[in-house]
Amino acid sequence: MTIVNRKLVLASRPEGMVTEDNFRLEEETVRDIEDGEVLLKTLYLSVDPYMRGRMNDRKSYADPVQIGEVMTGEILTQVEQSNNESYQVGEIVAARLGWQAYAISDGRDLRRIDPSPAPISTALHVLGMPGETAYFGLLDVCKAKKGDTVVVSGAAGAVGSVVGQIAKIKDCRVVGIVGSDEKVRWITEDLGFDAGINYKTSDHMVKDLAKHCPDGINCYFDNVGGPITDAVFPLLALNSHIAICGQISMYNSAKAEQGPRFLWNLIPTRATIQGFLVFDFFDRFPEAIKDLTEWVVSGQIKYKENVIEGLENAPRAFIGLFSGENTGKQLVHVAD
Amino acid sequence: MTIVNRKLVLASRPEGMVTEDNFRLEEETVRDIEDGEVLLKTLYLSVDPYMRGRMNDRKSYADPVQIGEVMTGEILTQVEQSNNESYQVGEIVAARLGWQAYAISDGRDLRRIDPSPAPISTALHVLGMPGETAYFGLLDVCKAKKGDTVVVSGAAGAVGSVVGQIAKIKDCRVVGIVGSDEKVRWITEDLGFDAGINYKTSDHMVKDLAKHCPDGINCYFDNVGGPITDAVFPLLALNSHIAICGQISMYNSAKAEQGPRFLWNLIPTRATIQGFLVFDFFDRFPEAIKDLTEWVVSGQIKYKENVIEGLENAPRAFIGLFSGENTGKQLVHVAD
Repeated sequence: MTIVNRKLVLASRPEGMVTEDNFRLEEETVRDIEDGEVLLKTLYLSVDPYMRGRMNDRKSYADPVQIGEVMTGEILTQVEQSNNESYQVGEIVAARLGWQAYAISDGRDLRRIDPSPAPISTALHVLGMPGETAYFGLLDVCKAKKGDTVVVSGAAGAVGSVVGQIAKIKDCRVVGIVGSDEKVRWITEDLGFDAGINYKTSDHMVKDLAKHCPDGINCYFDNVGGPITDAVFPLLALNSHIAICGQISMYNSAKAEQGPRFLWNLIPTRATIQGFLVFDFFDRFPEAIKDLTEWVVSGQIKYKENVIEGLENAPRAFIGLFSGENTGKQLVHVAD
Repeated sequence: MTIVNRKLVLASRPEGMVTEDNFRLEEETVRDIEDGEVLLKTLYLSVDPYMRGRMNDRKSYADPVQIGEVMTGEILTQVEQSNNESYQVGEIVAARLGWQAYAISDGRDLRRIDPSPAPISTALHVLGMPGETAYFGLLDVCKAKKGDTVVVSGAAGAVGSVVGQIAKIKDCRVVGIVGSDEKVRWITEDLGFDAGINYKTSDHMVKDLAKHCPDGINCYFDNVGGPITDAVFPLLALNSHIAICGQISMYNSAKAEQGPRFLWNLIPTRATIQGFLVFDFFDRFPEAIKDLTEWVVSGQIKYKENVIEGLENAPRAFIGLFSGENTGKQLVHVAD
């Protein structure tokens, strides 16, 4: 039986804000798999802010996607055919094989997903890379500990929502910065954050943050950057830690942005700012997934999925990340 | 015999650039010392950039100097009278007792200076707080190690000149940023830096830095901030460390300055920026002084003193720090 793959390739590089025209849907016949290979059928694909960086023609921590190449990203798949004894037909595996409906793998770099503790889609967020990012960024980079005041930007996103809930589990005071009143309600009423601030309606971010952080900010987990992050610096507590996870406010900027200088703030506070990538903690992923699974199963960590139907709508789902349309994890459902 | 003290008090708080009018010279009769006290006669006083912060009416890591109070600072003194069995007349001690010709102390918080290894004035710089600042900032905060490329701003100053020389002792490649060609010559020809850049005549700081840092910058020791520091971010190497020691370019700014946003740079590089104060390493000062003394005695660390004569000229010496007039350590000679 001939299987036709559909894939989204990079059609052009964005100048500033990414648009749907930067992608192109292509079809191709799937070749037969060889010895040791598996054919994977995509169930869900993940769209994440970091992917914006791969669309630029600039080497960063990973190579850029080339024009005509399938768009990068993690997919949740089911083994459809297998010539690899390690993988049986029907198994669920996650793979970094990009925005496509079918993919062939030699079995390396696949992650087998246990479907028992939680819906398999969680392997693309709370029990996957975004969850691990939250875990190590908060506990290792921000060094959050009991009693700390933790501020997280992008707090209703796939990473930020987990950051805040882990911080609550660790007995921190948690303030989330989000972009809508509905998101404020979700993180405070459903997720247990101590406070939420809608930056879009705040008249004075520093004052609003100060109100909720009377002892200053010990940990700041930054997904956003820009003016939101500017408001944190005047409130840093002694020996505070800032983890730079993302700067989504700037990913679509065509030119360098200006902002207030703040480095002098680090001297009296002895604050530390550190950028990180979750892959730096690769060896400790099992530890994170063990804890996160426990917390999801016990209900201490909740999540929300925002699912768009159809591979062809992945560009729209991706673009929505930058206007803050998603609450929780943005997924694209490709097949059952 | 009546002894008359002369002291420089804070007459007014500066608005923007500090001026001589912000200080006032006062005279007063020195009272008799009591049991346990010593009378100290100032030989040298130290002017340092951090003092500018104490002139503002804003609590930082230390309380501000009050109007009418003697200006803060470390002085090198000789014991003139003693009712304290720990200190003998004629001994040399350093004390944080401010810009005055005589000071009374109860003997606490004095630092006895060994006059044998080097001229006693070095206790106010290479064998004192500026030396300790360079030592811990480079080795502990910047985590400099063999083979690293180290960039230091304010490289011809009391701290920066020692930073670069310690880095050479530790087998690093060292590039200094300074404000004159004469300073470039001093740090490269006399102090052994691999390269120096005069930021005042550089057309393109990033390109000039890149030329001297072909493998990127592993450690940046920042005394200056502002546009000089902006040029470092595009060149950071993987896992690089930035120590924020000072931001002298902004100490006299009346309002917040703007500059390019750079936090996104920290993600692919996993760079760390940390502010620090030398007092955080107080318990380890003896370790630093032991090493620094060895290096000064062996000639591996050289220094230059810029000495202004007369207590009354301390304000002028201090103001000169901000226009880069001093090469090496700026001292005020008060008495023999």
